[in-house]
Amino acid sequence: MQKLLGLTIDEWLNAYQQGTLSPKQALNELLSCCSPDDPAWISLVNAQQLDVQLDALAIRFKESGEDFSQFPLYGVPFAIKDNIDAVGLPTTAACPEFSYLPEQDASVVKLLRQAGAIVMGKTNLDQFATGLVGTRSPYGVVPNSFDADYISGGSSSGSASVVARGLVAFALGTDTAGSGRVPAGFNNIVGLKPSRGALSSAGLIPACRTLDCISVFALNVEDAQKVFELCLQHDSNDPFSREFDSQAPRTLPKKPVFGIPEAINWYGDSEAEQAFENTLRQLTAMGVQIKKLDFQPLHELAALLYEGPWVAERRAALSEIYQTRPDAIHPVVRHIIEQADNFSAVDYFNASYRKQSLLRDAQHLMSMVDALCVPTTPTIYRIEQVQQSPLMLNSHLGSYTNFVNFADWSALALPGGMRNDGLPAGFTLIGPTWHDFALAEFGLRWQKFQPWSRGALGTSLPATPAATPPCPADWIRFAVVG
Amino acid sequence: MQKLLGLTIDEWLNAYQQGTLSPKQALNELLSCCSPDDPAWISLVNAQQLDVQLDALAIRFKESGEDFSQFPLYGVPFAIKDNIDAVGLPTTAACPEFSYLPEQDASVVKLLRQAGAIVMGKTNLDQFATGLVGTRSPYGVVPNSFDADYISGGSSSGSASVVARGLVAFALGTDTAGSGRVPAGFNNIVGLKPSRGALSSAGLIPACRTLDCISVFALNVEDAQKVFELCLQHDSNDPFSREFDSQAPRTLPKKPVFGIPEAINWYGDSEAEQAFENTLRQLTAMGVQIKKLDFQPLHELAALLYEGPWVAERRAALSEIYQTRPDAIHPVVRHIIEQADNFSAVDYFNASYRKQSLLRDAQHLMSMVDALCVPTTPTIYRIEQVQQSPLMLNSHLGSYTNFVNFADWSALALPGGMRNDGLPAGFTLIGPTWHDFALAEFGLRWQKFQPWSRGALGTSLPATPAATPPCPADWIRFAVVG
Repeated sequence: MQKLLGLTIDEWLNAYQQGTLSPKQALNELLSCCSPDDPAWISLVNAQQLDVQLDALAIRFKESGEDFSQFPLYGVPFAIKDNIDAVGLPTTAACPEFSYLPEQDASVVKLLRQAGAIVMGKTNLDQFATGLVGTRSPYGVVPNSFDADYISGGSSSGSASVVARGLVAFALGTDTAGSGRVPAGFNNIVGLKPSRGALSSAGLIPACRTLDCISVFALNVEDAQKVFELCLQHDSNDPFSREFDSQAPRTLPKKPVFGIPEAINWYGDSEAEQAFENTLRQLTAMGVQIKKLDFQPLHELAALLYEGPWVAERRAALSEIYQTRPDAIHPVVRHIIEQADNFSAVDYFNASYRKQSLLRDAQHLMSMVDALCVPTTPTIYRIEQVQQSPLMLNSHLGSYTNFVNFADWSALALPGGMRNDGLPAGFTLIGPTWHDFALAEFGLRWQKFQPWSRGALGTSLPATPAATPPCPADWIRFAVVG
Repeated sequence: MQKLLGLTIDEWLNAYQQGTLSPKQALNELLSCCSPDDPAWISLVNAQQLDVQLDALAIRFKESGEDFSQFPLYGVPFAIKDNIDAVGLPTTAACPEFSYLPEQDASVVKLLRQAGAIVMGKTNLDQFATGLVGTRSPYGVVPNSFDADYISGGSSSGSASVVARGLVAFALGTDTAGSGRVPAGFNNIVGLKPSRGALSSAGLIPACRTLDCISVFALNVEDAQKVFELCLQHDSNDPFSREFDSQAPRTLPKKPVFGIPEAINWYGDSEAEQAFENTLRQLTAMGVQIKKLDFQPLHELAALLYEGPWVAERRAALSEIYQTRPDAIHPVVRHIIEQADNFSAVDYFNASYRKQSLLRDAQHLMSMVDALCVPTTPTIYRIEQVQQSPLMLNSHLGSYTNFVNFADWSALALPGGMRNDGLPAGFTLIGPTWHDFALAEFGLRWQKFQPWSRGALGTSLPATPAATPPCPADWIRFAVVG
């Protein structure tokens, strides 16, 4: 069974195509590796639900003349954060009382199933995607995949954990203020946070609807990019969906300029500091030019999101359960959304004007470089620490993630080597809107230069392909459709 | 003196260049035609302020080697709505207690002065640009320039009036929900409502900052377009300023498709109905194809703006005076901005989601045609009627203007012939964002096909130039700079 853990998409596809694995046997075996008691899962498919999916795929595959090229994710197992609808499994958003059985798949889940991917289960999260810690859930705390005393990061805690432990090839997360990046950094995997509106949010329980993105976790860059490409389709069912800009650059310059914060508060975490310094050394060795920038406007944007009226979006999304069954909401989450009462529409507009002004400064910063480069988080905490100080430590973790969706930017969280204490470090590249492919192209270069292990499994990943996007023809097809 | 009234920009320039007029003599004479008792003015320059401007221009003109081409508005008199800053005159926003002496010109005023234009005065408005009627001002009601029993329309009442009566060649207005179009329609002049962010709002007292546009009134299309082009410059002092899209079309198709409302509530005004039908007949004769569309999503957008939380923007702009001197605010305006208390930040977000969904429907409507074509207003009212029912009648007037800035569209209000009762009718073309030039290009075709008189003066305008934008080279220069 061990051999099924931690396979990449290509490894799954190759095994199927070469006949060394059969989907039915392999995925049933893989499912038996998944424990319902594992706090990373909120629900798993049962054997029958797995078979139904596999049988449907087998019929479609046969109808295609057994043409693998029509199924770019043929039989590839994946997990879904439990605030995204998938038919057959309840959507809980980590709130049992909120649970419902969705009538249709979220748009991105539908696209992935069309491509042949197989849903293994729904993953735990900070309730209603409110948090960056992975501890705010009645379904249990998701421990770090390297050291169970530490947090996994959140809110997409379960999705990152099951990818890092190789239980699925990839997973969907979401990202409003960093939920698709922080847990990637804490679990040595890739977190691709698309430009807002690139992937449809239809079928997603909103956190902050104007900012939410569905994101992708994978063991390596090519898999994250592949899933992103397959999901990239304008969706008329999502008013926030936007046409991808087909003119956006697909590569970074050969010797890109990365903007880093001129001062970083590491909250005393010298391991995190050393890891980032090491990353910068490696980047420099790759030819990257590092430019120190004053991140003050970005910190102010982050503060506006965390302390300002945008909390009212979270309340707006939960108004029914908040009014009728407030006790059903996790106390920390409830405390946060209670703050919405402090803000009037006038407060919103005043904050939005401040935001608009800060955005201008933010764009100016971005215009000076090819991308920003930040530690994914300035530090990591033990579960116990977060439970003692759930709000303040959470806000520290978002220092370099919070502002990104506000600024309408793309981001890619990458493994950044191991710390001396055995925990992984991560860093994140942040680019302008629609620079998703350009960031991924550099991500492949980084992966080749400084390879990392398969999540928390410790084994090495397959060799990195050439640092150009794998299937531009496919990409053009998906960008034009819809 | 009569000969100075109602001159177009080209007529002013030609007269100066041919030496038949001198700026000093002509503009002093023109000033003497302007009465401080005229309710269209809030303040006029005095003779000394006029001379200061003319002397400064004379020096610059001499320094240029008397090169007229460097002064595309050399000595051309204009007026400024009194919610836009111009050094030397107080900005009141039609609220005496709010009045202050600005330390610098609004960005657009600065550009116009650089081009050689001369400020004649500041014009009356519905207080704080709140209204479409021209009656909500302690500086008096601005009567219609054709029939003093009727309203001038607002909020840019004074600016439209002084252009229609030929006291200036052009005037700046503003437009949030129709203030730059309604008074154009009621006074037989052109109202160019730019795409949001095309002209800088720096130096403008906000009404709804996310929606406000500075607009242009002129006697003919070429003058409105010329002023627009000269003001078209990205402004880093305005966080809402946007780079103009240089790829946007500059013409409409030879036989464009115009979308009209499939049903119009004329509020019993058969004259308005007949005038619009006549306009449609003329448009059809020009080769325009008329397509009836269901405007329901646009009406819902309009209702959202008028009845929803965007009123909190007006309050946000006036919080100081509202809190400290509420009695200084016109009772109707105060009543409107009091409604802001009804909306929380949660209400705002819920309304913004509804807006986002309606915008998708609105874009779909627009995608089916080259432009929308609507009556500028469905009817007109007597001053007395509006004073008796100030809110409801105002909202009727905005039926076809309210939704435009919400939808991020461009618009051009054009004269649409005379009604049998001697009042002017108007219609408005509405295009996608950045289609300002394309609308103006068609506006020139309309002007050639169906010429109108000089505002309310009754005399004919000069022949319309060829229906192509007059100075693309200039335009490219202004789009690239800044």
